[in-house]
Amino acid sequence: MPPNPQRSSPPEGELHPLEQAVALALQGSDWRAVNVVIAVSGGADSVALLRAICRLRPLGPGDGGLIAAHYNHRLRGDEAEADARWTAETCGRLGVPCELGAAATAPASADEAAARVARHRFLLQAAHKHGARLIAAGHTRDDQAETVLHRALRGAGVAGLAGIPARRELAPGVSLVRPLLSVSRQEVESYLALLEQLYRTDATNAQPCYTRNRLRHEALPLLRSIVGPGVDGALLRLAQHASNQHAVLSDAASAWRRLAASRVGQQWRIDRRQLAGLPEPVLCEVCRQCWRAAGWPQQGMTEAHWRRLTAALTADDCEAFDLPGAINVRLVDGALVLAPTK
Amino acid sequence: MPPNPQRSSPPEGELHPLEQAVALALQGSDWRAVNVVIAVSGGADSVALLRAICRLRPLGPGDGGLIAAHYNHRLRGDEAEADARWTAETCGRLGVPCELGAAATAPASADEAAARVARHRFLLQAAHKHGARLIAAGHTRDDQAETVLHRALRGAGVAGLAGIPARRELAPGVSLVRPLLSVSRQEVESYLALLEQLYRTDATNAQPCYTRNRLRHEALPLLRSIVGPGVDGALLRLAQHASNQHAVLSDAASAWRRLAASRVGQQWRIDRRQLAGLPEPVLCEVCRQCWRAAGWPQQGMTEAHWRRLTAALTADDCEAFDLPGAINVRLVDGALVLAPTK
Repeated sequence: MPPNPQRSSPPEGELHPLEQAVALALQGSDWRAVNVVIAVSGGADSVALLRAICRLRPLGPGDGGLIAAHYNHRLRGDEAEADARWTAETCGRLGVPCELGAAATAPASADEAAARVARHRFLLQAAHKHGARLIAAGHTRDDQAETVLHRALRGAGVAGLAGIPARRELAPGVSLVRPLLSVSRQEVESYLALLEQLYRTDATNAQPCYTRNRLRHEALPLLRSIVGPGVDGALLRLAQHASNQHAVLSDAASAWRRLAASRVGQQWRIDRRQLAGLPEPVLCEVCRQCWRAAGWPQQGMTEAHWRRLTAALTADDCEAFDLPGAINVRLVDGALVLAPTK
Repeated sequence: MPPNPQRSSPPEGELHPLEQAVALALQGSDWRAVNVVIAVSGGADSVALLRAICRLRPLGPGDGGLIAAHYNHRLRGDEAEADARWTAETCGRLGVPCELGAAATAPASADEAAARVARHRFLLQAAHKHGARLIAAGHTRDDQAETVLHRALRGAGVAGLAGIPARRELAPGVSLVRPLLSVSRQEVESYLALLEQLYRTDATNAQPCYTRNRLRHEALPLLRSIVGPGVDGALLRLAQHASNQHAVLSDAASAWRRLAASRVGQQWRIDRRQLAGLPEPVLCEVCRQCWRAAGWPQQGMTEAHWRRLTAALTADDCEAFDLPGAINVRLVDGALVLAPTK
């Protein structure tokens, strides 16, 4: 048989560097044995992820299936409908079933956080429907660099600087993984060019976060021209350092929390004497862990709120006060008690 | 007596906000009781610091003196000579003696680190000559924001992100303080305008670090326009978070170092078993503390070198190797031994 002159993918057994990166990122996740939902917007990143996972899936054992899931935020009218149709067709050609979801109504404004919550809810529904244990999303190294820069410029703490996690549990037994975090957008584009794989571009550029677009298209190119092309790598190393260091703090706080904090029903009771003399970052992390463990909403909690709560752990005296999420904080017999107001 | 219509300074007792910031920053430093060297380049920041300290000095007790010190790096020829003359004259008018120093020869290239070492050496000489315990330098909030951004973009760890310290020991008994770190460059300029105080501007813009100039004049204005005017404050909060969090790590590492590391003559011997199971950032900080305590040079140690040294604390087996600064690392009976090669 003559060789195919218009080869559209590397020969069997020879993995493209992007595919190698995905294989490495998914290593140890048992991904071939479980069903995997792939979040596909139709953009370059998610289409590259879809193609790479489709290529890798048959190369190993296990009988897990692949399911694509596409969510229409209804931010861009007809064009978004066309993205959904295109994504479903592309998945069909690859033999991957595709779940389509859409917001009930067009949102009044482009609220990035609300959009993410809605998208994650849809992805979780798709995962539950198909008994999937993993949801894979196409965030790249460029997304990570932008995120870290954006958080640094918004005054994030060390935990926030850790950036987008490579893996995180979205619900019990269902984890979100990002196998492209080590891959640049440029590598994504050359992979797709090699495969002659088309993808959708967001022509209106009406992405939820305008700030992010300007950081991507204006700020990062300028910073690369000033400091050098290593800027992206530097931001990723920073994220790694911050992540490592936050883990140290988190472990320490966790040990102190087990010693000093106890949960009774809906309320936390923190024995302040046990925590006497601990540094402020450890105390703050103890508070955050209690809050998270209780499942209280964190969106309304600003840096100033966390500081106020932390200060209540060491203040000589402290009036009762309420925090966002309707949580009341008060001193009872020298212990700090956190409880829902209703 | 009629009021002076061209009042060039606030009335007695009414401190300008910049002067209040300097007073607050120097609070508790016993600065009125000891001699203080003020580093004066002739630029707006250092001249504002000089004026503020001159204003504050007579308002409290203590008989410490003020000495200005100006260093000519010989990077800018005749203009630098004129800066030195202008600084000496300005100090003379304020009744502050001024020490002038200069590099022996013009440096071949603008090496920021070498320039800083030379300047600090001169400032320390001036401090020793006058028995001064404090050296005050005019770094501002803008310098801090630039430093944090620059370090983030160069991939600094959490310790590096902590930015310029407000106080640091330069030599036993002599500390460098930066009382303007909470003051913006704009506040400096309006303070000097109010005083009708002139200052020197670096007309050639040939500052040692070209990157810093571009971050100041191009990157930060763009980032403020994208993310908002809060960018500088966010970078300062990040520095504060990083500093607090690094302090936690540093304290933990210090305790483990006392337990596991012992210094015999010129060498450190680290009992690896005592450190088993500790997270990597703690192990790395233990290594850094040993290194610093021994007074070994840190300039040549890159991130990769620190990682290699840290890895030797946990590696099953490890060949001896040398690190920059001519330090040999080897395993002896399960302990890691660090010693100068000669």
